[in-house]
Amino acid sequence: MKKKVLLVFAHPEPGSLTRQFVDVAVETLQGQGHQVMLSDLYGMGWKAVFDAHDFPQRLDAERLSFIAESGHAYATGTQPPDILAEQQKLLVADAVVLLFPLWWYGLPAILKGWIDRVFAYGFAYGYQGEGNRYRYGDGILKGKRALLAVMVGGSAEDYSPRGINGPLDQILFPITHGNLFYPGMDVLPTHAVYGTGRIGAAGVELALNAWRKRLANLFAEAPIPFRRQNGGDYPDGHVLAEHLAIGRTGLLVHVSDEDSLPRAVA
Amino acid sequence: MKKKVLLVFAHPEPGSLTRQFVDVAVETLQGQGHQVMLSDLYGMGWKAVFDAHDFPQRLDAERLSFIAESGHAYATGTQPPDILAEQQKLLVADAVVLLFPLWWYGLPAILKGWIDRVFAYGFAYGYQGEGNRYRYGDGILKGKRALLAVMVGGSAEDYSPRGINGPLDQILFPITHGNLFYPGMDVLPTHAVYGTGRIGAAGVELALNAWRKRLANLFAEAPIPFRRQNGGDYPDGHVLAEHLAIGRTGLLVHVSDEDSLPRAVA
Repeated sequence: MKKKVLLVFAHPEPGSLTRQFVDVAVETLQGQGHQVMLSDLYGMGWKAVFDAHDFPQRLDAERLSFIAESGHAYATGTQPPDILAEQQKLLVADAVVLLFPLWWYGLPAILKGWIDRVFAYGFAYGYQGEGNRYRYGDGILKGKRALLAVMVGGSAEDYSPRGINGPLDQILFPITHGNLFYPGMDVLPTHAVYGTGRIGAAGVELALNAWRKRLANLFAEAPIPFRRQNGGDYPDGHVLAEHLAIGRTGLLVHVSDEDSLPRAVA
Repeated sequence: MKKKVLLVFAHPEPGSLTRQFVDVAVETLQGQGHQVMLSDLYGMGWKAVFDAHDFPQRLDAERLSFIAESGHAYATGTQPPDILAEQQKLLVADAVVLLFPLWWYGLPAILKGWIDRVFAYGFAYGYQGEGNRYRYGDGILKGKRALLAVMVGGSAEDYSPRGINGPLDQILFPITHGNLFYPGMDVLPTHAVYGTGRIGAAGVELALNAWRKRLANLFAEAPIPFRRQNGGDYPDGHVLAEHLAIGRTGLLVHVSDEDSLPRAVA
């Protein structure tokens, strides 16, 4: 069945590995009959900084509260057109792929600014004006798929379970769980390419082929089994039930079968 | 002894809790005789997006490699003046405090862009042109202290050891360990204020008092005992030695006594 896929990407260099991943994604997905939407953040001159200019009609002209003004702008239809356009792409998409180089163990600022600005109150959080009722598996983007495609300069070893940087899936947990699963998306295991600084032409070919294969299963593979807030595992909506992941703490208790958690795929 | 402290902060609203924390920090630190430097990112109109404009004299005019051009600009003294000024503040500082609201479980884009642009190759990574030789406890900022002061909208419960968001110290690990410890700084346990959305005047007073007390010990308290790359715990410089944190994986194996890890301080 034909689907719509939104690619959001953050690298200005047309020859970069990130952009080659974008090109291959367009080609592969269109080849499968899917429709592709692009958000080329550098190319669009995306405004990264969330600030008062994003609230042209303020609820409170004196004191700037981002949450209150974000909710007001969303509810009154006074958001800037660039934010609105991205929200509309998200609403029609069946899958969202973020493609970026890992900079200092996180998103490049321009992509973080896409999250900061587009994930408005009333839209990605505070959905239905009901505070935290809809989050982590429930929300406006429920039923859509999300995937990170990350270009990592360091070696896979440095991101291995006992590698010095920490495991990539845990470093990216604030994004996979906190940004994408939060408004309801099913998040697939991260697709990572390691050692991009010294990858070479043969390495690029291997990486692009692995990416083509990965994309072929975009709508078939199993998402990371993050626990849903409203699925019974959090009786009070805040803390994991005592009978689950007994005696354990940390990020991975929020994956329902943490021992079988799919690792970042090379 | 008088010290120099750099405050880097990211909130445009003068009445925000973040800015009140900045004001209290200035007053408290100056009251102790320290010298305070301010990087008011919104006020400065800090350029968040790392792009080709940051490399006015390119090594390769055809293809943009951020690492290569960052190293070239740093080595040849051709970095933009705003980047250079921040690096010089870091070099003279004895302590660096980042003050910000937690947005989507990470730094606001403008502050991420401060890291992306200021932490140049040759400076914060690739120090001395020796690849990964100096990192995690060694590097150009070695001996300086670093502290995050984070304004968190959600409740402390949601960030507790089994809270639905994940523990705050692990969510911030990419920043404390990956951004601040990486170039050599001693990172103190994060100072967090929870529930800032509904804090009220009395709550603000309590929070500011706790912050004053915390700052009084800025140069006395023990940092998070992250393991140093070159301290013997990583025999090959990549993977934790087998005899340490036996049978365990994840972010916290990189804290030398993970059972006594100081939690984020409320």
